[in-house]
Amino acid sequence: MKLTESDFLQMEKHYRASFFNSLGGFKSVVLVGSINQNKATNLAIFNSVMHIGANPPLCSILVRPAEVERHTYENILETKYFTINHIHKAIYQKAHQTSARYDRNISEFDAVELTEAYSNNIIAPYVKESHLKFGLECVETLEIKTNHTILIIGSIKEVLMDDNYIQADGFIDLELAGSLTVSGLDSYHSTKKLSRLSYAKPNEDLKEI
Amino acid sequence: MKLTESDFLQMEKHYRASFFNSLGGFKSVVLVGSINQNKATNLAIFNSVMHIGANPPLCSILVRPAEVERHTYENILETKYFTINHIHKAIYQKAHQTSARYDRNISEFDAVELTEAYSNNIIAPYVKESHLKFGLECVETLEIKTNHTILIIGSIKEVLMDDNYIQADGFIDLELAGSLTVSGLDSYHSTKKLSRLSYAKPNEDLKEI
Repeated sequence: MKLTESDFLQMEKHYRASFFNSLGGFKSVVLVGSINQNKATNLAIFNSVMHIGANPPLCSILVRPAEVERHTYENILETKYFTINHIHKAIYQKAHQTSARYDRNISEFDAVELTEAYSNNIIAPYVKESHLKFGLECVETLEIKTNHTILIIGSIKEVLMDDNYIQADGFIDLELAGSLTVSGLDSYHSTKKLSRLSYAKPNEDLKEI
Repeated sequence: MKLTESDFLQMEKHYRASFFNSLGGFKSVVLVGSINQNKATNLAIFNSVMHIGANPPLCSILVRPAEVERHTYENILETKYFTINHIHKAIYQKAHQTSARYDRNISEFDAVELTEAYSNNIIAPYVKESHLKFGLECVETLEIKTNHTILIIGSIKEVLMDDNYIQADGFIDLELAGSLTVSGLDSYHSTKKLSRLSYAKPNEDLKEI
């Protein structure tokens, strides 16, 4: 079947949200920890993490200022730092529950019963239960003019994980960490590795590595 | 273990690329089809697709102008349109092979033996073998100043797929489409659904849907 713009316009609001959130493929799903100047913490699930570059190490999240994610955005503007925490099977329901519209004076850490953890270098809270997490300093924000969403670009300051997740060539084994992936707004998936493929060159066969 | 900026600086270049490409979690992996004014086609694998919004339907990819992806970028600047094509188990090696640095006068469609397919609305080529694909018009480009990468924002013009992938609420079943996910630069994974979770509200238990 082929769907075009006239079909998109006829979609009911929630149907359209679910459809276009699914369309781009599987996504990273993480908890973003932040804190305001009064030390009130916030925890929010995001599926918009994007790798921006390795040198310097940069990563982004996308925020929609009108939605529940605005607390995260306001906190990052206030205190600059935030954390990204992978989620695994034992905590994905709690992670999803952070998307409920809690009042500003309630921390999602308390509401969903996840534990704050702190590092010396980053003021924002980590999720203790997460197996793989990293702390960032916001170095740039960019407005996407077409729909007024905001890309928050973070410089990666530290990474916390078990040693054994890292392979000899720097690859992090996300399956060993138990990290999940998401499709659409609400579908959580574990993964099964097919293979790693060698660096591609013209006229040379790929190898599994 | 905790790794900090002094550790990042000591990482060998390829190690660091692999490490930070893995860190953000599982990613979408797609083939981007494009064409220049002389009708020369290009096909490139991307793992940076991001959902930007559903109304209007917007999606982005990130390009690094200095790399092999520049052909895609140049083509999109010239002809505005591009396609995003999901990949499945039968074509992921061919998809990976498109990342080889082919000369400008070689189309990756020919080099890796994937088939061009065209729609009336979009000048750029689709991948015939892909099960789920969509066509976009570039409506905005944004430079991330911190590392000079460029976010290409596309307005989604049409979607091509089997009817049966779409559920009653608009959710697209990516596992039915066979879509894969990627971690790092080169690790391909299939997925297994844990569950879909209901819309979260404060003080209300989640349900599987």
